Order: sequence, then structure tokens, then C-alpha cells
Amino acid sequence: MSVRVGILGATGAVGQRLVELLAPHPSFEIASVTASESSAGATYRDAAKWRTGSPIPDAVANVEVVPTEPSAVPDDVSLLFSALPSDVGARVEPAFCEAGYVVSSNASNERMADDVPLVIPELNADHLALLDVQRAERGWDGALVKNPNCSTITFVPTLAPLSEYGLERVHVATLQAVSGAGYDGVSSMEIVDNALPHIGGEAEKLETESRKLLGSFDGSAIDHHDVTVSASVNRIPTLDGHLENVWVETDDDVTPEAAAEAMAAYPGIDLHTAPDPFIEVLSEPDRPQPRLDRNRGDGMAVSVGGLESSATGGLQYNCLAHNTIRGAAGASVLNGELLVDRGYV
Amino acid sequence: MSVRVGILGATGAVGQRLVELLAPHPSFEIASVTASESSAGATYRDAAKWRTGSPIPDAVANVEVVPTEPSAVPDDVSLLFSALPSDVGARVEPAFCEAGYVVSSNASNERMADDVPLVIPELNADHLALLDVQRAERGWDGALVKNPNCSTITFVPTLAPLSEYGLERVHVATLQAVSGAGYDGVSSMEIVDNALPHIGGEAEKLETESRKLLGSFDGSAIDHHDVTVSASVNRIPTLDGHLENVWVETDDDVTPEAAAEAMAAYPGIDLHTAPDPFIEVLSEPDRPQPRLDRNRGDGMAVSVGGLESSATGGLQYNCLAHNTIRGAAGASVLNGELLVDRGYV
Amino acid sequence: MSVRVGILGATGAVGQRLVELLAPHPSFEIASVTASESSAGATYRDAAKWRTGSPIPDAVANVEVVPTEPSAVPDDVSLLFSALPSDVGARVEPAFCEAGYVVSSNASNERMADDVPLVIPELNADHLALLDVQRAERGWDGALVKNPNCSTITFVPTLAPLSEYGLERVHVATLQAVSGAGYDGVSSMEIVDNALPHIGGEAEKLETESRKLLGSFDGSAIDHHDVTVSASVNRIPTLDGHLENVWVETDDDVTPEAAAEAMAAYPGIDLHTAPDPFIEVLSEPDRPQPRLDRNRGDGMAVSVGGLESSATGGLQYNCLAHNTIRGAAGASVLNGELLVDRGYV
Amino acid sequence: MSVRVGILGATGAVGQRLVELLAPHPSFEIASVTASESSAGATYRDAAKWRTGSPIPDAVANVEVVPTEPSAVPDDVSLLFSALPSDVGARVEPAFCEAGYVVSSNASNERMADDVPLVIPELNADHLALLDVQRAERGWDGALVKNPNCSTITFVPTLAPLSEYGLERVHVATLQAVSGAGYDGVSSMEIVDNALPHIGGEAEKLETESRKLLGSFDGSAIDHHDVTVSASVNRIPTLDGHLENVWVETDDDVTPEAAAEAMAAYPGIDLHTAPDPFIEVLSEPDRPQPRLDRNRGDGMAVSVGGLESSATGGLQYNCLAHNTIRGAAGASVLNGELLVDRGYV
Repeated sequence: MSVRVGILGATGAVGQRLVELLAPHPSFEIASVTASESSAGATYRDAAKWRTGSPIPDAVANVEVVPTEPSAVPDDVSLLFSALPSDVGARVEPAFCEAGYVVSSNASNERMADDVPLVIPELNADHLALLDVQRAERGWDGALVKNPNCSTITFVPTLAPLSEYGLERVHVATLQAVSGAGYDGVSSMEIVDNALPHIGGEAEKLETESRKLLGSFDGSAIDHHDVTVSASVNRIPTLDGHLENVWVETDDDVTPEAAAEAMAAYPGIDLHTAPDPFIEVLSEPDRPQPRLDRNRGDGMAVSVGGLESSATGGLQYNCLAHNTIRGAAGASVLNGELLVDRGYV
Repeated sequence: MSVRVGILGATGAVGQRLVELLAPHPSFEIASVTASESSAGATYRDAAKWRTGSPIPDAVANVEVVPTEPSAVPDDVSLLFSALPSDVGARVEPAFCEAGYVVSSNASNERMADDVPLVIPELNADHLALLDVQRAERGWDGALVKNPNCSTITFVPTLAPLSEYGLERVHVATLQAVSGAGYDGVSSMEIVDNALPHIGGEAEKLETESRKLLGSFDGSAIDHHDVTVSASVNRIPTLDGHLENVWVETDDDVTPEAAAEAMAAYPGIDLHTAPDPFIEVLSEPDRPQPRLDRNRGDGMAVSVGGLESSATGGLQYNCLAHNTIRGAAGASVLNGELLVDRGYV
Repeated sequence: MSVRVGILGATGAVGQRLVELLAPHPSFEIASVTASESSAGATYRDAAKWRTGSPIPDAVANVEVVPTEPSAVPDDVSLLFSALPSDVGARVEPAFCEAGYVVSSNASNERMADDVPLVIPELNADHLALLDVQRAERGWDGALVKNPNCSTITFVPTLAPLSEYGLERVHVATLQAVSGAGYDGVSSMEIVDNALPHIGGEAEKLETESRKLLGSFDGSAIDHHDVTVSASVNRIPTLDGHLENVWVETDDDVTPEAAAEAMAAYPGIDLHTAPDPFIEVLSEPDRPQPRLDRNRGDGMAVSVGGLESSATGGLQYNCLAHNTIRGAAGASVLNGELLVDRGYV
Repeated sequence: MSVRVGILGATGAVGQRLVELLAPHPSFEIASVTASESSAGATYRDAAKWRTGSPIPDAVANVEVVPTEPSAVPDDVSLLFSALPSDVGARVEPAFCEAGYVVSSNASNERMADDVPLVIPELNADHLALLDVQRAERGWDGALVKNPNCSTITFVPTLAPLSEYGLERVHVATLQAVSGAGYDGVSSMEIVDNALPHIGGEAEKLETESRKLLGSFDGSAIDHHDVTVSASVNRIPTLDGHLENVWVETDDDVTPEAAAEAMAAYPGIDLHTAPDPFIEVLSEPDRPQPRLDRNRGDGMAVSVGGLESSATGGLQYNCLAHNTIRGAAGASVLNGELLVDRGYV
């Protein structure tokens, strides 16, 4: 039985990735696509100006785009994927939840709210039960679950396998692709033959979301992890795939070999969109590279390479994930699958 | 009075930059250009396939290229600039020094040798006196001085102004331009829509050269600084300008404001090619950027931005320098000027 | 004596180039900079977010931006340079002319109007006298002169030296830089690892402006040349410099050698910003290239290469010009110099 | 029954594409991979430094690379795909044919030889029968068939549907991807923020191969078409996908609508790797674009857009094909399938 789903903000870069992932999905059926008021009434084909390298799925091309409001979405849709900008998300996501919809959202609003689970299924699926607290507190029939920022998703999975050694401090430098800013987020004149050592609000997301993701849920609240993370973020002229340089200091010593083994052995999760393996540890010193490794696991795997001991103590290595798949649309879809699996939809 | 100078390895990327800088130089006159045996006998124009954005200097275009050996260079040439590959440099630079030439070299061979000064004039001009030890030990009439690797030159100048606070640990991630690898060093298929998280031998250069540069000279040897540096190096699709993310931990606390002040106030040096100011501290959070800031001080200034306190303690900031000017050809020229100024030529 | 000048639309990509060219200009003094209502009142530094590779000129940085309307510009300003978008230009340029200002405009509105001279000084400086007709017809104290589109300026100068052979048909394919679309005109996701075979309205500009530029002025009107031009336009991932492939068929046969000679000998004009030579004919088959040749003549020269006989008859060759200097800001400045020289200012 | 095949020159850019296409092929089984003497003996994994975005096929990864000579290839291999450089191809391909192997070659040597069929199966499959002449003349048990240059394959398929109108003259400007030159063919310093208006020997290939492809086979020889083609070739900073601007003049008038219809209706061929449709006519004026359209038909379709009447008479339009799939490896594989289908293997 297919679950009828909707996509909020379906015409942008992440929205189009959601369409790509959901159209062929065996358990979801796209029943509604929403966009801003100005696109409402148009077919999805006309509204989206489809800009990925694959053809626009037939099942969606001629669907009429509706405005992003609960009354416009059919009642038999039970699960919504949100690719809204955070300011729009902040305004309308609660209304959808209030109206009974379960929302798996990529938007950054409320990611750090106490009663909103921030989930990477392979890492902290148990945090999803925070939804019971959320429903009780907010009086919602629906529910709101978030996936983290694309740059957070890239490196936090590599920390989880090291947590048994006692995570103390992390330095992370990101080399982020332009698609992370959306279709019109970075102009060509800004980035051709250039790099931008700043993305507004991004460093803070890496520093705070990581602690929530690695935290523990005691049945009523998330106890954030006390690891200290310092991030330096950069935009570079790549299309997809965030590459990150990581240094990790732990309480107990960990050799590069032990770390590689722990990462490679870190279990995935048995859901349709989840990759297997979850983390791919590469032995070539010059990998992972955005163009060569971003599509591992159909864009859902996290790649690691260059593992070695750092002169400053601890480990250093590089990691990479596809920012609009594992880091955005795929993350939301996987959370949607988890919501179904755990009975919230 | 002009000093007659020669350029060893004059046809490559750094060699061409040397020609650009030396042709209009008020105190140097290009009297000899060398290249590999296969180019010897050709005019410089034909051998170099001039590939910079400025016209080839008339004074050099029709000069005959000679092989890279002491007998091919006129005796009245007293100062040589070396843009040789390190394996060639290792083979021929000592022979030139033996033959009485003073060599200001960008090649990486012997940079860490005990009796070879590694110099950034604004930082450690006093290390040049190590040449007296070198001449005594090696029995040379000539002399060999080195400038550091391009990625080292970018961040070490920002550490010097902080040394009064007690440098302890440094993490640095580099985003390096393709020109750093020479004309054919990085193929387009490797780097378009991509980034490479590894450059052979580069991380070690940042970690060791920095300690020698910041060390002190006691009249007979360099006492390397004991700061610990850990580097992660990346190649990105920019043409010129290495951007670096730096975290510095010091014994004594230093605020971002105090650091900015110390950097901006750090003195330059009174030599023709030296920039004034030496370090430019930028207040916009998204600067420095390679394309917009690499030409500050005619490519010889170091730019700093994004200074703030790090969550992991200490400071974090970004810095940038033009890798083939301040980081290579300009560095060698400046060392040449220092050699003349201090009476070694 | 300096002429006090103003810049209409001073904060965009072409506006900033105008500031770069006019700030050090020996006969012009920037007395007013205008922008949209939203920027009015701010300093130029704050409004412009200066984004060129050179420092913002001190003389302009702290000037207050005024709205783009005649009442906001001082009366003693006699010459205005317009870098306005064409829709804004269409609305306000006539008002400035009406108010007595002479406007040298890069905006595309009215370029093809019968009584508006479209001028490249080296080609058709005599067309400027059309201003007498314009003033008579429109009752203006001021005047409006236009420079052509950046892609037109690139190839039409190479046709003029061939006109003695009888220009019949021209095919031209353009490879245009992203700066031609302004700072936010082309997003990075559109153009990284890509090319766009269409620019709205651009092909028509090449086809019609070329005939007006090559036309003759009989004292009362421009008789457009009857050469037939067919253009195919492309945007590629370069920052500056439009490269064009040209095929020219002429009534009389012309050899590549004769064409090269005619182009190289084509006279420039004795004005401050004019390059000498005007057209640079390069002998290497793989030139001109955008990055290597766009700055010839300080960005004001047109480069030609690859001249040969075409299998389809006639000639084929490649040409290049810096699109925001020779193709926009520099073109307007040169027209301004011509206006002064010919007594219209 | 699988045909056992070999790949000559399997480690380069085209060789890796051949491995990608042949490893999962239902009727071919990779039984031998050859490379230069220096790689012989290594596993394919080690020799190839696999550099595509997909994982290296298991079936090939550990195969031992053999030298490129007939004695090194097993006898039960009956079909070889050649991705050799043309100088090597010229030397060894005849030896393989002499030894009884049928060779489907992408190398440019002998493409224009009178008794070597140059084939695009959808266009001129009947030319394959020239192999009977070849075998008779050369006394080979094997056979040599060629596919055209990547830039030729891109536009010639769009001419075939127009041939009924009488092809007279064609002007074509190419915007070619860097992969067309092989992994190390274009350095990053040559092409970042740049374009190259020249590729050695390329223009001639477009001009001559097109006439052979469109020619007719009378049972003993190919009568080359008398259409005149003039090409201007450019390299631009895209990874894959050659975009071309085409102008076609025909004896009889053809409207853009009729041309679109003829192209869209042009039949494909019933072979495994052949796309359906063969030619995709796109209605958006700004398509095809390399990144968005190169993968149509799994990289084997030719895309056309921007069809309109040209000011110079005739038609103008843009076309695109994936240069290393349809333009190289895929072309060879398709020719291999045709060889099997027609009984030559």
C-alpha cells in the first residue's frame, strides 16, 4: 500500500530532488506539490523549470501546483516533505502539523527546538519518540521532524563511530558546493575562479546541531552531547557534494586503523532509501572527491578518507556527502520512511 | 647600479612570474634565463609559450635560453633566482653556489637543511646571517637562501604578530589554487566541479617550515619554534590565491580585536617589492576571497578576515595570499632584495 | 580643466567598472553617483558592495548615492555615463537629456532609434553629428549617445577593415562571459560545468546594431549597411572577455594575409581611453583566449586570431574583447571623450 | 550467448567509459584489457586509477592488464574495442586485424581510408558492407571499422534528416568539453576562466568526416557527399557534452517546423545501446545544455534546440551529444553491436 505524500516547496533545488526521489519510490505516491502563491495554478512542469540532469517524472509533470497551505492539500495525504525556505517553514509548518499532517522537513526553522526531533536515522532513530512529547505539548495530531543542515550531515556520521572513545573537541573546515544555496543562491560572478570563506549562520549550525544529534533521549528530552565543535565554512565552485576536513580529539586514544574499522562497521538502517554501507572508508589518500564520490550509495552514503593521526593529537580525516541528496532531500525521505516504520504515519 | 641577475627554470609558471617581476625591476637586470636542455638555444619567447595575462617583456622575449648549468651563465651575473623543480634544484643549486653564485630559491629542496636560511623578510630577516655559517661549512663563495612553500607563506605571517601571546597549537585547512602545481600540474578533468583533499608532501611542509620560520637564530643555528601545527590541504578550482582557515591556540588569551590590531600593526620591511601594509585585516566577514583579494599589495600582501573566538578556545580566522607572487616568485625576489641590502650580493 | 561627470546606475557591474575608469581619469571628475531609490542616501561604499579585484577608489567611496533623477544631480555636472538597466534607461535617460545633460549610455534602449547615434569612436565617429538632428527633433539641450552591445563591439571592429572588399554575409557564434549579464545575471548552478546556447534578445542585437554601426551618415540620417549577419549566442563559464567565431563573405576575394594586414593597420583614434593599436592580430592559432588576451590595451583593444580561408568561401577567424571594458564601461567613457572632443560637452 | 570482447587502451578516459558500458552489457563479456607496456602485469584497478563517478565494475577490477599486441589477447576473443591514441592505433590495429580480430575503433587513424567504413549505425549502417572490400583488398580475416570524431558525431546526425532538402553548405561552431582531450589533455590553468579557440586537427575532421558519413556506398566504394562544411572549434570549461551551433543551407527551403519534424521522426536502430528516440528536439530556446541534456538516452541521444530561420538564409540551431559516450565509447560499442548483427563477428 502506497502512502500518499505531498511536497511543500516543490519547485526549488531541494524540491526537485524530492520529486526525483519520490516519483519512483515504491511506498510513496506524490499526491500534491505546493509552491508560492505566484506559481499556484500552473503545472509542475511550468512552475519548476526542471533543472536536474534527469528527465522530469511523467507522474508529476502535469500535476497542478497548489499554494502552500493546509486547505490546498488533500486530506488523504498523510505525510508531507518540506523543502521550504526557513522563514516560510516557520510560518506554515506548524499550521500543517496542527491540521494533522506529519511533516518531514529539511527547513532549518525549529531544528533546535526542545520538542522537535532532529534525526539521521542511522544515528539517532530513537530520538523520533520525542514526537510523543511534541504532540502532548503542542496538541497536534500531526508531527514535525527535522533533518539537519547539509554540512552537519556530512561530518556527524563520522563522529558517531568514535563516540565510544569519548568525543572531546572537533575542528571542521567545510568546502561546500553551490547547490547548497539553492538555484539562485550563489551567482557565477561570486564563485568562478573564487571561494567564499563565509556562509551566513552555517558555522553555528554545525556547532549546535551536531551536539543535539549526538545527544541521548531519556524519554522526555534530548540531552545534548558536550563535544565542542568549531567550524570554518567555505563555498567553492563545485555543483554538488560537501567535502569536509575534520580533526577529532577524544578522551581515549584511537588509531587511524581503529577509527577506519569503527566507521566501516558502523551499521546502517533497514529502510528503502538507506545506503549499505552507510559509511564508505576509502584507502586512496586523495579521496573522497566531490565529483567522484558524491554518488556513492545513490547519493546517500558518507565517504571518508585520509584518516591519520594529527600532529595536534587525535585524528584527522576528510569526509564527503551529497548535499542535496544525503544532505537534504534524501535525508527528508529517509526520515519519512522512518516515520512510517515507527508508526507515526 | 643594476645587479645583473639570472633566472634558473625561467619557462615554467613561477619562472614566468619571475620574468614579470624582474623585467621592470629598478635594481635588477635580467642577464640570463635557463631551462632544460631541450629548450636551450631557443629564444625565451619560443621556449616559454608565455601564458600570463600580461604581454611578454621585450627585454626578455628574444634572449637565448641557456641550459641550467654554471658554465652557461655569464660570470658577471651575481644573483640567481631559482624556479626549478625540487629534484633539479637539489642537483644543480649547490653547483651554482659552489661556482660563486648567490641563489634565491623557491625550490623545496634543502629548505629544512640546518645551514640554509628559510626566509620571509618581514618575519625573520635576521636568519639570513645563517649564510655565514653556510659559507664556512660548505666552503662556498656563493650562497643559498630559500623562501617557504606557497601555502606556508600564507598563514605563517599571521602567526608572527600573535607570538607574544605564546603560540601553542595551530590547525590549518588550505584551499589552494591550481597554479600552485605549475602549468600542467592539475588537469582540468581532475578539478572542474571538484576538489582534491590531498597534495603530496604539502601538509608536512606547512607543519615543519612554519616552525623553522618562527624560530630564533642564535648566531650559529636556528632554534625551531615549538608550536604544533596540523594541516589539512585541499586543491580547489581557483587559478591563483591560496585561502586558508586557521585556528590558533595561545598560552595567553587574545581577543579577536587585539589580534586584528597586532596583525594590522605588524611592520613590513623597507624593500622595493615589499607591500605596505604587510598584513591587511579586512572587516567584512566574507573576505578575503581569492579573486578579489589576491592582488592586494601587488600580490605581495597577506589578507586576513573573519577573526573571531573559536568554540574550541583560541582564535579562528581566514587568510589569503597570492601563491605565485607572495607565495613563490615575489618571495624569491624579495629575498633577493634582502640579500643585496644585507651585503651578500 | 576637468569635466564634472555623473554615473547613472553606479552600483552594478558596469557601474563599478565606470568608477574604476573614471576615478583616475585626467579630464573627468566624478561628481555624482546615482542608484535606485533603495540605495539613495547610503555611501557609495555601502551601496556598491564593491566587487572588483582592485580597491574602491577613495574619491568615490564616501560619496553619497543619490536617486536616478535629474533633480538629484548637481547642475554643474555636464556629462553623464549611464550603466542603467534598459527599462530604467528608457524611462529616465530622456528626462536627463531634456534637463540639459549629455548622456553617454551603455543601456540598450533607443540604440536603434533613428536619431540616436550608436558609436564606436574608431569606426564611426562621424555619426556623432547625428546629435544635431536629435537636438533639433527632440528640442533637447542635452544629448543621448549610445555604445553598442558588448557582443556587437567584439566583432564589428574586425569587419570595418574588410569593408573595402564589400561585406556580404557574416556568421558569428559568440562565447560570452558571465559578467555580461551583471552580478546576479547568471547563477552558478546554471553555468558551472555547463554552457547556455541562448541569451534573450542578444542575437538580434548583433544582427541589427552591426548594420547601423557600419552604415554611413549623410548629414541627416544613418543609412544602415546591407551586410547580412546571422548570430548564434552562447554563455560560457568565463568571467570576462567575449570570444567570437566569425565567418565573413565578401564581394571581392580577400586572403587571410590581406585581412590580417588590413586589420592590424586599421587606425585607432587619438583619445585618452583609446588603445593603440586598436586591433591586435595574433599569429598563434590558439589565440585570442579570454583570460590571456582580454586585458590587451588595458581592456580596450580587440584581438583577432586564427585567420584563414573558410571551406565555405570567404574568411574565418576568431576575435575577442573585454566585455565590461571595451564592451561596456570603457566604450561609454570613450564616447564621453569623443563628445568632449567634438564640442558636445 | 555472450561474445568475448577485448578493450585496447582500456585505462584512458575513453577506455574507462568502454569498461562502464561493456561490463553490464547483455551480449558482451570483457575477456581482455590492454594498455601500454608500462601498465602490463598490473590489475586493471591499479593501472586505470579509475576516475569516473561510478564504482569500478567488479568483473574487471582484478583482471590483469596485458600489453597491446595480438599475442597477448586470447584467441577466443573475437571483437575488440579500440580506445587507443591514433598513433598507437595506426601501428597496432592492422596487426590485430591481420591476426583475425574484428576491431571497432574510436581512434582517428584510417578513418578517411577508402576501404575503412566510418559508421554511425542510425545513419549509414549500409557502409559496413565496405568491410567485404576491405577484407578482399587487405587479405584480413579480421576487420576494421571506425566511428567518427566526437565533434562530428554531434552534428552530422542532425544533417541526415535534412538531406532530402539538398544539403549545400554548413557552418558549425563547437563548444567542446575537456574530456574530449583525455584525462590529461587540457590542464586546469589552460581552461579555468578561459576558452581555447583551437583544437589541433579537429576542424578538418568535422569538415571531411561529415562528407564520408553522409556519402553513399555503391557496393565497392563510398561516394562522399558534396556538402561543404566549415568548422570553428572551441574548448570550454565543461566536463562532458559537446554543444554545437549549426547553420545549414539547403537547395530547397525548409522551415524550422519541418526540420524539427524531420529530426524528431528520424529513425533509430534496433540495437541494445541505441537510444530511442535517436534525436530529441527540445522546444525551450535555451536548450540543449551540456550538463542538463548530455545524459539523454543514457548518453546516446543527440539533442537539438533553438531551431529557427537564419538571417543568412537556411536554418540555424544548436545540437549536443555526450562526447565520451555517443561521441566515443558508446559509438564504438554500438558499432560492435552492428558488427555482430550483420554477421561480421
